[in-house]
Amino acid sequence: MREMAGRPGTWSGLSLRVGQFVFAAASVCATASALGFAAYTAFCYLIASMGLQALWSLGLACLDCYALKFKKDLHSAVLVSLFVVGDWVTAILSFAAACSAAGVVVLFDKDIYACKRDHLLPCGKFELATTFAFFLGHVVPHLPL
Amino acid sequence: MREMAGRPGTWSGLSLRVGQFVFAAASVCATASALGFAAYTAFCYLIASMGLQALWSLGLACLDCYALKFKKDLHSAVLVSLFVVGDWVTAILSFAAACSAAGVVVLFDKDIYACKRDHLLPCGKFELATTFAFFLGHVVPHLPL
Repeated sequence: MREMAGRPGTWSGLSLRVGQFVFAAASVCATASALGFAAYTAFCYLIASMGLQALWSLGLACLDCYALKFKKDLHSAVLVSLFVVGDWVTAILSFAAACSAAGVVVLFDKDIYACKRDHLLPCGKFELATTFAFFLGHVVPHLPL
Repeated sequence: MREMAGRPGTWSGLSLRVGQFVFAAASVCATASALGFAAYTAFCYLIASMGLQALWSLGLACLDCYALKFKKDLHSAVLVSLFVVGDWVTAILSFAAACSAAGVVVLFDKDIYACKRDHLLPCGKFELATTFAFFLGHVVPHLPL
């Protein structure tokens, strides 16, 4: 079981956590740089959810670094349960945020043509933030929890 | 393992499948009765996803009825794998559809006040369809797959 790729306390686990953190942080930055994002609930929820995901992934990446440096074992029942519950909660919140933001982006772009009519609307940044959130969702299933 | 509530081929499994079907069908009916829903991608996706979920749940409910009537065993490895994969796919599609529809509903209602400004927009029916889709999502985790 300890040989499985992506387990906590391994190099593959650390690289997956870093990948999660990078995509979550990129999504937060893209949303925060979009002028007037706070007027839309879906993007407020996206930034909150991605912020939580970034903190969680950063925390676990630090724990992985500590375990690798001092050769600690992170496979106790309590720790693994904590990782499983935390990963499920953050994954569901992130996926819900990405889907609701995608719904709004498609509405603006294809349904009500708000992006063409209102050039001040930062559609490109909203699309970028949503894309990063979905990339993050692509990393999560590789964690063998 | 056969005693576990909600397993295929049991009365509890059948009741969960009927619950899934009822919520999915209710969501389809609420969306279809909302005038002009086809103009919004999120609600087109919602009706497609809920239609697929309704068909899947109805099919498995029929299979449960058959297994209960003729006392058949549905716990072969192939069948259980099929149920697991099918449930995961429909659950992810339904959750994504519910979240994107919720994003659009909240945008209409709270962010751009489209419901107050345009009285022809069937916001009540959109909200009802999204609520049924989330109720469906509450039934899915009770399936022990």
